[in-house]
Amino acid sequence: MNRKPLFITIEGGEGSGKTTMIGRLAAYMQNHSIPYLITREPGGSDIAEKIRSIILEPKHTSMDARTEALLYAAARRQHLVEIVEPALAEGLTVICDRFVDSSLVYQGMARKIGVEEVWAINQFATENRMPDLTLLMDIDPEEGLSRIMANGDREFNRLDMESLSFHQMVREGYKQLADRDPDRIKVIDASKSLPQVEREMIRVLESAVLKDF
Amino acid sequence: MNRKPLFITIEGGEGSGKTTMIGRLAAYMQNHSIPYLITREPGGSDIAEKIRSIILEPKHTSMDARTEALLYAAARRQHLVEIVEPALAEGLTVICDRFVDSSLVYQGMARKIGVEEVWAINQFATENRMPDLTLLMDIDPEEGLSRIMANGDREFNRLDMESLSFHQMVREGYKQLADRDPDRIKVIDASKSLPQVEREMIRVLESAVLKDF
Repeated sequence: MNRKPLFITIEGGEGSGKTTMIGRLAAYMQNHSIPYLITREPGGSDIAEKIRSIILEPKHTSMDARTEALLYAAARRQHLVEIVEPALAEGLTVICDRFVDSSLVYQGMARKIGVEEVWAINQFATENRMPDLTLLMDIDPEEGLSRIMANGDREFNRLDMESLSFHQMVREGYKQLADRDPDRIKVIDASKSLPQVEREMIRVLESAVLKDF
Repeated sequence: MNRKPLFITIEGGEGSGKTTMIGRLAAYMQNHSIPYLITREPGGSDIAEKIRSIILEPKHTSMDARTEALLYAAARRQHLVEIVEPALAEGLTVICDRFVDSSLVYQGMARKIGVEEVWAINQFATENRMPDLTLLMDIDPEEGLSRIMANGDREFNRLDMESLSFHQMVREGYKQLADRDPDRIKVIDASKSLPQVEREMIRVLESAVLKDF
């Protein structure tokens, strides 16, 4: 079977189970002998890695929100041309943990730079290369954050500590994007049990793939 | 005398004498007791400095032209909010060696990304904070490059080695910008003798200042 390789992104707030679901997607790809690449920015691009280290350096307390947004767009551009596009060209389905939508929601909406403005620099970065499918893991932030605490599988990070209202803005922001682009962004109820979420994700994936052939 | 501090930028191709003229501007400011700051990106912003070191790293041969443009915009943003805006707020006239116009000309036009596209990310970076006055040192590139060789006051750099047609595009690009924005961008014939160029520059500066009061 000769599939056109898909560019799939996973989006969602903290504790929405993105990482787990990416693992399940990988298993699905293996079971169906679909060649794939799992990545996330900066994802092995040396240049993108260096850009990201500037963003994440704790000493950079004077970093302006717009500088940060431009640096994310720069790292995204480099990861796209060095990692994502070559993989797609080789016929791999690419599964990317976060992409443009994260910037629109976190920086455009929650940090209040403005979604149109953040979109403009991301259009420049991607030349309008958008994912074929975006799986949006939707969960109430209170539930998401309590999952992180309950699991204890990772430390709380800087983002987890933001106020609940910040995380509510993130959730609402994602929903607005999904409303605007329902063909690409599929909302998955991530509050359900793990097998239910997985089933729903695979159902969405398969209908997106079928639609393309 | 209570002047509104001006934001002045100097633009021009290689060998157009920007550095010399900035020195003369500084002397003018001192003679007239005008408090001023001379700067250029990244200009003492630690974050902008680090961004610039990624751009300039010779090992980064895989850097995409759009990544580079985004990094320049990021460094510009940070330099603007950390260095330029605070200096203007303190009442200093700021003289900046190159600014947005350089990106429009070198990356938008000569590197062919497109001037509208490069303008979009620079609008994001500057929030439309444009210089009050831009002094464009105009010279035929052949003359400019032969000056650099004759002076021997600095090494040929990577940009100097670009083809003459590249430098012609830069010159034409600058002229197009000046045609579009004649109130801000003042073209100075940099092929004349040093005292003539200086006189012309001061004349342009003084009429711009007078216009503002």
